[in-house]
Amino acid sequence: MTARNATAAVIGAGDFIGAAIARKFAREGFSVFAGRRNGDKLAPLVADIEKAGGKVSARSLDARQEADIAAFLHEADRHAPLEVCIFNPGANVNFPLLETTERVFRKVWEMACYGGFLTGREAARLMLPRGKGTILFTGATASLRGGKGYAAFASAKFGLRAVAQSMARELGPQNIHVAHLIIDAGVDTAFVRERIKERGGDPNTLSPDTLMEPESVADAYWYLHSQPRDGWTHELDLRPYGETW
Amino acid sequence: MTARNATAAVIGAGDFIGAAIARKFAREGFSVFAGRRNGDKLAPLVADIEKAGGKVSARSLDARQEADIAAFLHEADRHAPLEVCIFNPGANVNFPLLETTERVFRKVWEMACYGGFLTGREAARLMLPRGKGTILFTGATASLRGGKGYAAFASAKFGLRAVAQSMARELGPQNIHVAHLIIDAGVDTAFVRERIKERGGDPNTLSPDTLMEPESVADAYWYLHSQPRDGWTHELDLRPYGETW
Amino acid sequence: MTARNATAAVIGAGDFIGAAIARKFAREGFSVFAGRRNGDKLAPLVADIEKAGGKVSARSLDARQEADIAAFLHEADRHAPLEVCIFNPGANVNFPLLETTERVFRKVWEMACYGGFLTGREAARLMLPRGKGTILFTGATASLRGGKGYAAFASAKFGLRAVAQSMARELGPQNIHVAHLIIDAGVDTAFVRERIKERGGDPNTLSPDTLMEPESVADAYWYLHSQPRDGWTHELDLRPYGETW
Amino acid sequence: MTARNATAAVIGAGDFIGAAIARKFAREGFSVFAGRRNGDKLAPLVADIEKAGGKVSARSLDARQEADIAAFLHEADRHAPLEVCIFNPGANVNFPLLETTERVFRKVWEMACYGGFLTGREAARLMLPRGKGTILFTGATASLRGGKGYAAFASAKFGLRAVAQSMARELGPQNIHVAHLIIDAGVDTAFVRERIKERGGDPNTLSPDTLMEPESVADAYWYLHSQPRDGWTHELDLRPYGETW
Repeated sequence: MTARNATAAVIGAGDFIGAAIARKFAREGFSVFAGRRNGDKLAPLVADIEKAGGKVSARSLDARQEADIAAFLHEADRHAPLEVCIFNPGANVNFPLLETTERVFRKVWEMACYGGFLTGREAARLMLPRGKGTILFTGATASLRGGKGYAAFASAKFGLRAVAQSMARELGPQNIHVAHLIIDAGVDTAFVRERIKERGGDPNTLSPDTLMEPESVADAYWYLHSQPRDGWTHELDLRPYGETW
Repeated sequence: MTARNATAAVIGAGDFIGAAIARKFAREGFSVFAGRRNGDKLAPLVADIEKAGGKVSARSLDARQEADIAAFLHEADRHAPLEVCIFNPGANVNFPLLETTERVFRKVWEMACYGGFLTGREAARLMLPRGKGTILFTGATASLRGGKGYAAFASAKFGLRAVAQSMARELGPQNIHVAHLIIDAGVDTAFVRERIKERGGDPNTLSPDTLMEPESVADAYWYLHSQPRDGWTHELDLRPYGETW
Repeated sequence: MTARNATAAVIGAGDFIGAAIARKFAREGFSVFAGRRNGDKLAPLVADIEKAGGKVSARSLDARQEADIAAFLHEADRHAPLEVCIFNPGANVNFPLLETTERVFRKVWEMACYGGFLTGREAARLMLPRGKGTILFTGATASLRGGKGYAAFASAKFGLRAVAQSMARELGPQNIHVAHLIIDAGVDTAFVRERIKERGGDPNTLSPDTLMEPESVADAYWYLHSQPRDGWTHELDLRPYGETW
Repeated sequence: MTARNATAAVIGAGDFIGAAIARKFAREGFSVFAGRRNGDKLAPLVADIEKAGGKVSARSLDARQEADIAAFLHEADRHAPLEVCIFNPGANVNFPLLETTERVFRKVWEMACYGGFLTGREAARLMLPRGKGTILFTGATASLRGGKGYAAFASAKFGLRAVAQSMARELGPQNIHVAHLIIDAGVDTAFVRERIKERGGDPNTLSPDTLMEPESVADAYWYLHSQPRDGWTHELDLRPYGETW
């Protein structure tokens, strides 16, 4: 591993995709800044990365607070130039329309869309003076389809996709690569395994490669960051080979 | 005009599309409930409709307030059964990314997306017990494309489109028609004429039918409401014949 | 019914949607030119329209033959100015990939896409000198989604949609309205009822309005033709209220 | 370079993208089978690959002929198991609608869509018994948008995209990765440089990285082939950083 004088910030560094992304960029020599609501939960990730010889800083942050996001990214950038910024918080909920409270609708939007806007804008503010950077947003099936019961989640995810497009069109010509990944299937997380059980399935007897490994997803983030600027991807989808779509 | 025992509510009854929709449904015999931020500005619309023999009630409401929306729709429904509900507030703004404040981003979303969710949900609450109704949302070019400078507006409009889709999938089988109109061009409004001037054009020398008349747009809302339930449209676009797209 | 000095041509005037469109435009006073592979099968449609006081000419034509299409439309136009042209042939097939022969792939394309191109182009050739006309294309779910087993059908339907878009962008500013309808559900046809039986259902016990009536679909074609040119729709979808999508 | 017992076939191995893909897969140890209309033009590519120590076979083939495609792929597969198959022929033309002859419309479709169907199907026939393989299709801006003058090209490209989707849905669960790349900008080819001149530009004074290098595009094909099967991408777009879209 060759250390780089560069930081990769991950907002929404949860136990699965977010953590895998953090490990990947750390392995590639980035100083990683990992943020999530409860920063204490980042201890295992920090241990993992440091054991492998990587550099990582863990912070508690509320992705719905402009001040938190700005402070986190500015600190990261003081540590070493912010080259990569990834926005990954999840907020997947499903409620019948009449049971979708204004509080849920607003909170899901704040976490999944508003926080993404703030993150992208603050990252751009730091990257633009250097004319260089990568900003990546995690999308989902619900980024493209407003399914039954998903008024809150799909609305936020559609909104985040618009943010990504708008930023890409403005920042691309300034050499900042903005991309949006459609994670169109279940990643192998505790949440997904629980939902499989709820539907009467047994997640332990799934065929191999039926759920996406967080590491495979993280590789796609790395690929997007690695693309030469004469051929940038703005959007790609990801799903396991056996998925029905 | 045959009066119906039915109400059509228009939230965002602005001077142009919203007013034309209100006039159209009034002409078709509906009692119209028209709401906008400053209800005093509805006086000319009320005069128009009443002069033509129609029925209309004007109210001030803040489409970003759950209580306002609920009170408005419940009052409309007590007046006569709420059969049609139209969400039409505009919030078209364009800012460079770094100048898009969190306040603007939030406010645009509250007006154009959150208010739409609340409106649709409260309308559904009133319509579902009767198993009948039409809910229509006004979209824009920015509902499909996150253009440069449109992070706030496109994000809100994408989000509203997801709300419309999600509601349509849940409410359709319960006989409530939810549709979304993509207004993909300039309607003949003061705002659009001003923007034409800013770009060096003269809105008074435009070819005929180059801008959409609000009445033409209103006819599309009426058409959607009039469709038999064995053939419902969820989404259609509207633009003048000469528009480049 | 007021007779008009205008012709509406329907290519693919099958027993269901195509026939309903022909009846609708005849009722609205158009001279209808109805064409299908085996023109003899048009006898009941002709009888229907004439009984109702309408005017109709039935012709055999092969929508895969440039000469047939041109001759049909030119004859229609000599009869009275061609104002409306509708392309409606169906070619819905589903085969596993390895069983999709080159013959099937080509034939489905010729019927559903190539014929549509020829129809639209020849209609435009007749309409452009008068600066007026409407050209409508029938699409399907497969216009937007390449489902399993639909390589041939979806490919042709995607292709037809591109033709419609390209024509709309070129012809719109010349006052020719080109639109594309996504028929996203089963219309009440013998073919659809047969497929319901194959899946173990009983089409005679379906809930009312579960299948689209051809007349409801035809009304959407009429609506598109009737739109004023300051507010044209290029694409709309149609499905019954209870449809899952 | 470690030689593999595996063949990568490139149909439409033109001077730019196709050749770059061939070189890339040869460098990665594949035996490459390169086909184009006039196989003699492949001599420089063959020299390049062999000089670098790679293995390549060049063939003349007409991608519009089922027999040619089948013979080419079967020969490739006898040489070493066919693991990768790439369909890349271009057919970019722009004609006003009335000047788009049926011959052009048909020919463009045969080259850009029908040939893709045949290629994908024959590749699948060879790959399915081994339960392994990658099939990649080259798309373009016109795969998503039917622009003015593009009735023929966009129709074919839309059609090819449907083929790719349909194949992906059927073949994915059988462990064959089917993907579609949207090349949404000018690649650095003689054709594109000529078009820049026609518009009055000077392709020699373009900013660096304004046109895509074929090698950058080829890397995306390699990336798609390299994805683990628990996280496959079906579609991604590619454009240079400065592109307006």
